[in-house]
Amino acid sequence: MGNEQESPLGKLSPAFNPDAFFESALAELRADGRYRTFTQIERLAGRYPMALRASGQAPVVVWCSNDYLGMGQHPVVLAAFHEAADRLGAGSGGTRNISGNTKEHVLLEQELADLHGKEAALVFATGYVTNEATLSTLAGMIPGCIVYSDALNHASMIEGIRHSKAEKRIFRHNDVAHLEQLLAADDPARPKLICFESVYSMDADIGPIKAICDLAERFCAMTYLDEVHAVGLYGERGGGVAEREGQMHRLTVIQGTLGKAFGCGGGYIAASGPLIDFVRSHAPGFIFTTSIPPAIAAAARASVAHLKASTRERARHQAVVTNLKAQLVAAGVPVMPSQAHFVPVFVGDAHKVRRISDELLNGHGIYLQPINYPTVPRGSERLRITPTPLHTDEQVVALVEAMRCVFDAHGLLRGMTEVALHDG
Amino acid sequence: MGNEQESPLGKLSPAFNPDAFFESALAELRADGRYRTFTQIERLAGRYPMALRASGQAPVVVWCSNDYLGMGQHPVVLAAFHEAADRLGAGSGGTRNISGNTKEHVLLEQELADLHGKEAALVFATGYVTNEATLSTLAGMIPGCIVYSDALNHASMIEGIRHSKAEKRIFRHNDVAHLEQLLAADDPARPKLICFESVYSMDADIGPIKAICDLAERFCAMTYLDEVHAVGLYGERGGGVAEREGQMHRLTVIQGTLGKAFGCGGGYIAASGPLIDFVRSHAPGFIFTTSIPPAIAAAARASVAHLKASTRERARHQAVVTNLKAQLVAAGVPVMPSQAHFVPVFVGDAHKVRRISDELLNGHGIYLQPINYPTVPRGSERLRITPTPLHTDEQVVALVEAMRCVFDAHGLLRGMTEVALHDG
Repeated sequence: MGNEQESPLGKLSPAFNPDAFFESALAELRADGRYRTFTQIERLAGRYPMALRASGQAPVVVWCSNDYLGMGQHPVVLAAFHEAADRLGAGSGGTRNISGNTKEHVLLEQELADLHGKEAALVFATGYVTNEATLSTLAGMIPGCIVYSDALNHASMIEGIRHSKAEKRIFRHNDVAHLEQLLAADDPARPKLICFESVYSMDADIGPIKAICDLAERFCAMTYLDEVHAVGLYGERGGGVAEREGQMHRLTVIQGTLGKAFGCGGGYIAASGPLIDFVRSHAPGFIFTTSIPPAIAAAARASVAHLKASTRERARHQAVVTNLKAQLVAAGVPVMPSQAHFVPVFVGDAHKVRRISDELLNGHGIYLQPINYPTVPRGSERLRITPTPLHTDEQVVALVEAMRCVFDAHGLLRGMTEVALHDG
Repeated sequence: MGNEQESPLGKLSPAFNPDAFFESALAELRADGRYRTFTQIERLAGRYPMALRASGQAPVVVWCSNDYLGMGQHPVVLAAFHEAADRLGAGSGGTRNISGNTKEHVLLEQELADLHGKEAALVFATGYVTNEATLSTLAGMIPGCIVYSDALNHASMIEGIRHSKAEKRIFRHNDVAHLEQLLAADDPARPKLICFESVYSMDADIGPIKAICDLAERFCAMTYLDEVHAVGLYGERGGGVAEREGQMHRLTVIQGTLGKAFGCGGGYIAASGPLIDFVRSHAPGFIFTTSIPPAIAAAARASVAHLKASTRERARHQAVVTNLKAQLVAAGVPVMPSQAHFVPVFVGDAHKVRRISDELLNGHGIYLQPINYPTVPRGSERLRITPTPLHTDEQVVALVEAMRCVFDAHGLLRGMTEVALHDG
């Protein structure tokens, strides 16, 4: 071992030098344009979507937050947040089983069960863990379960299914006929679970919920619908696309997040009492994790309750989305087809999308993070605009003008696709 | 399909009825004494360890929280929490890459890197996700990596290693000679990663950090040390057992949590710059998750900074632990050997530990959650006391008297084991 090298990691084998390995992997990402630089911003509660950059420069307008309705700064949310922290402290101090179960957690789950018209709900630390833990538990513990998974499902669903070790069939994105073929080819007696999303965030299209529920009933399959990009935003009470389409009662599991339209943090499932109790009792990602801070639970409950009763935020949100899409199309900015509240704008090159993002930020005070692989496929790198009800008409005009200008400079203006102009 | 049944889950195959399946799995847990009932409590910030039960009964004394030092209600922690929420809102609004990266997150990681004397740190949503995501990424992406894992490692480490699909060797708990045999038997050129904990929470024993670092250097292996039950509690600045034993600089990765002694929420790793950047760039459980609320990040940083400078909490903590252990032994309560700040008390039966817990809660106002399978092996069910610096001498006396009384009634008094009386 005379060849050992010294590094911050200690003495290293001649055959393997960890830091050198990590550095070379990172160099590959850089060469590929996929190395991620986190933009540091300080959102200004009360003035959102305005935010400060850490460097203390002029405020920028945030156009890529998943706090879709600005609920993270809503007075009822912040009041609940402060009140619970003063009463109960910062962290929960334990797992739900060992001292970390407060009334705030229990009431939040009741609120969420009610939102989706289900018997029960279960809150996890994040939406990612919700999908990973629930799917690995259900598909892994139901004997002989076969999982049918949409090809564009989120990484967290893919990981959960993978970890379950259940048999898996991938159906082409939103392709009901393909799903039907796959279901028909399998033993009718085997338990089946169809996993899909309502709003696919990167392409802004919407899953065929009713058609999939029809198939599920025909083939006696359970359904698992990820509504993380829809809860709070769609349906009379913010129950999601399934509520809007009158399908909530037909779904076995509805999964959502408290960290996007509800403006707080954490994820959840809503389902039958026995299913929730089963997951609660068996999912390692639930059992072995400190519960979310009670103040976050209280704030999330206030947010859900507010958006159940108030439709103002949703109406204004959709109006801003429609207005922005129309203006971008008119300006020749290459918006991609969108059935939902996202406005994806095509660039198609990892280096270029980074440069455009930098120019928008530094030249125009507009914060739009580049979206690259693995979040979207290589060659489809894009910007993704997330309008909120708090963006003013003036801010919309300024965004359109800035994008027209930057995309023009890069020779990227004009319609590689036509945008579908509906409220989605 | 004439046999279909109706259930809240929709029409079901004759061969598989999900709710019936879940119900029967839950019935098994109940028969086994392993069905978990979450005790609902309201900790009283400012009066902790006192807490209210949801039913509005008299306050109880919490003796099983992982908020080991009561930092969740510390004025500097709550001040930072409120200040950041007022300034930045409740949720972060996005992943670290897409609009969810505030100065609070960046400063917290700098504080944690400094705490452990490492170049960099990375914060995750929970300690569980930290282990799962980091280990599955490191062991999964380093070509040919072999993982050596302590037999009693936490579920989150086991899952991370499993998901990596790397080759794995299990060494007997804390058995350095066995680890050495396993290392010696493998190809010297293969990358190696040794995974272990400093404080094992269920048995309250401590890993042989120095001996494992010695082996790691000899065999050119990387080391991954889980210090979740030790950070904030041990070492001059609360850097953990590795700090106390002068070993921090020898470890490749130190993993910790912000949800236990630091009283907030979230998990982290500290390591070399390239390693942190590699995990940041590749771990799905990091990339695809909304970042922790900025108020939690700010509160956690205040907590870490406070415990770096103040040794008062640690000193009082150890004094309460020592005093409690001595009094329990004197009273004949079957405390298990403990090198750390936990005081495990042996019961050995799932039904009995539940009854004892209920009697302590309802008869004596003492909250001690039963610990059962899968958290500990069957037949070793126990209570686990976590004293804090905020427990008074009177509360210690009352706990000892209550346990003496209840254990006597169950015929469980007196020394099936001798307690090791050191401060651990």
